[in-house]
Amino acid sequence: MPEIPHDFGVGRSDPGTFPTESIKAAALAAIDTEAVELNNYPGSLGHSGFRAVMARRESEREGVGVDPDHIVVTNGSMQAVTLCAEALQQQPGDTVIVEEFSYPGTLSAYRSLKLDMVGIPLDGGGMKMDALEDALVRLEREQRRPRFIYAISTYQNPTGFVMPRARRMELIEIARRFGVPVVEDNCYGDVHYEGPVEPSIYALDDDPNHIYLCSLSKILAPGFRLGYILARPPMLETILARRHDAGSNYFASAVVAEFYRDGIAAHAAVTTPPLRRKRDLLCALLEANAADICAWSEPPGGLFIWVRLPADTDLAKLYSLALSRGVNYLPGSDFHYRAAEVPYLRLAFGHLPDTSIETGVPILARCIREARTSNEPVDVDSLF
Amino acid sequence: MPEIPHDFGVGRSDPGTFPTESIKAAALAAIDTEAVELNNYPGSLGHSGFRAVMARRESEREGVGVDPDHIVVTNGSMQAVTLCAEALQQQPGDTVIVEEFSYPGTLSAYRSLKLDMVGIPLDGGGMKMDALEDALVRLEREQRRPRFIYAISTYQNPTGFVMPRARRMELIEIARRFGVPVVEDNCYGDVHYEGPVEPSIYALDDDPNHIYLCSLSKILAPGFRLGYILARPPMLETILARRHDAGSNYFASAVVAEFYRDGIAAHAAVTTPPLRRKRDLLCALLEANAADICAWSEPPGGLFIWVRLPADTDLAKLYSLALSRGVNYLPGSDFHYRAAEVPYLRLAFGHLPDTSIETGVPILARCIREARTSNEPVDVDSLF
Repeated sequence: MPEIPHDFGVGRSDPGTFPTESIKAAALAAIDTEAVELNNYPGSLGHSGFRAVMARRESEREGVGVDPDHIVVTNGSMQAVTLCAEALQQQPGDTVIVEEFSYPGTLSAYRSLKLDMVGIPLDGGGMKMDALEDALVRLEREQRRPRFIYAISTYQNPTGFVMPRARRMELIEIARRFGVPVVEDNCYGDVHYEGPVEPSIYALDDDPNHIYLCSLSKILAPGFRLGYILARPPMLETILARRHDAGSNYFASAVVAEFYRDGIAAHAAVTTPPLRRKRDLLCALLEANAADICAWSEPPGGLFIWVRLPADTDLAKLYSLALSRGVNYLPGSDFHYRAAEVPYLRLAFGHLPDTSIETGVPILARCIREARTSNEPVDVDSLF
Repeated sequence: MPEIPHDFGVGRSDPGTFPTESIKAAALAAIDTEAVELNNYPGSLGHSGFRAVMARRESEREGVGVDPDHIVVTNGSMQAVTLCAEALQQQPGDTVIVEEFSYPGTLSAYRSLKLDMVGIPLDGGGMKMDALEDALVRLEREQRRPRFIYAISTYQNPTGFVMPRARRMELIEIARRFGVPVVEDNCYGDVHYEGPVEPSIYALDDDPNHIYLCSLSKILAPGFRLGYILARPPMLETILARRHDAGSNYFASAVVAEFYRDGIAAHAAVTTPPLRRKRDLLCALLEANAADICAWSEPPGGLFIWVRLPADTDLAKLYSLALSRGVNYLPGSDFHYRAAEVPYLRLAFGHLPDTSIETGVPILARCIREARTSNEPVDVDSLF
C-alpha cells in the first residue's frame, strides 16, 4: 500500500519523540536483571515492577492510594476492553451501555461478542445523564439490566470531551442505583495539555464494581502493547477467571518498567509540547480553512479532533475525493455504535509531521466544499 | 511464598542457557531499526519479520513451504489455544474433542468457555483412533458434531507420546470424513532429543480446516509471550475476526526476530543437550529409586516425564507429603479432561539444576512408598 501523505486516520504516538536511546538503555538493564525471571510464566497479574510503576502513575494523577495487586497487565488496553466484556457478559444478546460515539476497537469487540449496545447521546460534557437514566429506566422495564456502562471519561475518543466532576458524581450515583458496573476507559488521560485534570471515577468512589482501564500506547508507543485493568476484589477475580493467555508480555513490561522507574512525568514533558503544538496547528488551520462550514472540538488533551461536517455533505464522495488527493481520516460512522452515517469525521494528529498537517487541512477543506450538495449557509455554532 | 527446592511443577525453559548477551544485542539492533514502527499498531497478523522467521522454522522442520502471511502472532500459544476455540465455538455447550490427558491451560480455557469436552483415551502413540471414531459416530447420532479436535501431536503434554505418521494419516482421514477441523498444538516440537521427527499434520495434508499452533516459550523463554497460529483462508479470517486486542507484542517480536535472524538451529544446539541430559538423569533416578512401583515415559523430546503411580496410592497424602519435604509436581488430575483423580503425576525438568533432580527424585520415591495403602506388588509393565 503506498504511503498516504496526509494520514489523519489511526491514532498513534509521535515517532519524533520516541525515546530510542533511553529504551535501549532500559532494555539492557532489564534483560540483565530479569534473565532468570524471563524463563518463568508472568502470572495473570503480570510483571510486579511494571504494576508498581503504573500504581504510582495512577496515585500521582488521582491523589489516592492504588494497590499494585489490583492492577492486571494486558496486551494494550484493547485486551482490557475485550476481557472485561467477556468477564461480565453472561450470554449473547446481553445489553451494554456505550456513548453514542465511541472507540471503534471497543465497538468492534462488543459486536463480535454479540453484545447489544445501547448508545447514549453526548454533549460537550460527555454522556448525557438524563438520557442515561431514561435508558436505564426503559431497560429495567424490559428486564434487560445492562451488564455494564462503558465510558471514555477524559479526552473522549472521538469527541475529545471531558466529563466534569459533577457529572462523574451523577454517573456514579445512577450506576449504583441501577446496580450496573462502570467500565471507565482513561487511556488518553495523561495526554494532557492545559487546565484542570478531572478525577477518575475510581478516585471519586470506592464502589468495588468500578473497573478502570488505561494504556501505555498513548504516552509511549502502541508497539509495546501494554495496557492494564485496575479493579478490586471480587471483580478482580471475575476478570482474571476469564483470562486464558498465561499472562501478559513480561519482557516488554520489564523494559517499560525500567524506562519509567522514576515516574512518567519526565517523558511526558518531552512528548506533550509537540502534541499540543500539533493540536493548536490543526485547530488554527481548520479556523483558517473551514470556519464557515465546520464545527470542531478543541480538546484540552488526547490525540483527536472531532469535526462536524455540513449536513448536506455527500459522505462517500468526500471520503473518496480526500483519499484520491492523499488525505485519510476516519469517517463518523466508524465511531457510531450502530455504524450510522453521520456528518462527522475524526482527525488524528499525534503522529503527523507539522508539514503534513499544514498541507493536508487545506486539501481536506476543499474536498468538503466540493462534496457538498448545496451552497446553503451552515450553522457552525455547535459541535453536537 | 518460600522457594520449593525440588519444584517439578510448571514447565519452564532453562535459565542456565538463556542467551542474555545475544538478546541484549538483538534488543539494541531491533530498537534502532524499529524506532519508527514501534509507534504504529502491529496489525492482527503481527510483526512481519518475526512471521518470516517462524515460517522458515516451520519450513525447515517440515520440508514444506509456509506462507508468512498465514501466520498470526499471539500472546504465547495459550492465546492461540483460546482464540481458536473462541473463533470455532458457536454457543456455550458446544462439543470439542481432546486427549483424555492434556495441557491444563487448554482444559481450563475450554471449561471457562463452557465447551463440553469429550476425552479420547491415549496409548504410546497418542489419541487412539478407534476410540476417536467411536466417539464421532456416537456424537453424530446425538447430532452433536464437535467444533474441533484438539491434539498435541508431538511430545504430548503430559504423556510425552509422539503420534506416528500412520496414525496422523488416520486422524486426517477421520477428521475429514466427519467434517471436523483439527487444532494441532506443536509447542514442544522443536525440543527434540533423538530419533526421527514426525511430520506435522499441516505438512501431511492441505485441508484448509487444519489449524496449527506453536510457541517460543519452550525453545526460548515464556517471558517473551510469543506464540503463533498457522492457518489458511478462509479459516484464517474466521480466527482473525474473533481477535480484539489490536495485535501482538511488536517490541518482543522484533527483538526475537532479530535474535533468530539466522534460524533457530544455533540456539537449539545450545539449549537441547542440557535438557536431554536432565531427561536422562531424571529417568535414571526413577529407575534407581522407583522401578518396582512406577512406570514412566521416556519421551524423545519435550520437557516432561509422565509417571504412573501404584493404584493403591493415597494421592492427597502423597501430594502433601511431597510438598512438606520440598518436592512439588503436578498431579494427574490436573491433566484429566474431567479432572478425575488418577494415579499419575507429571515431572517437569527443563528449568531445574541437576542437583535438584538428583536430590528430589529419591525424596519423591520415598513419599510414594509412604503414601501407599498396601504392600502389594505393582504391575510396572505399562504406562497406560
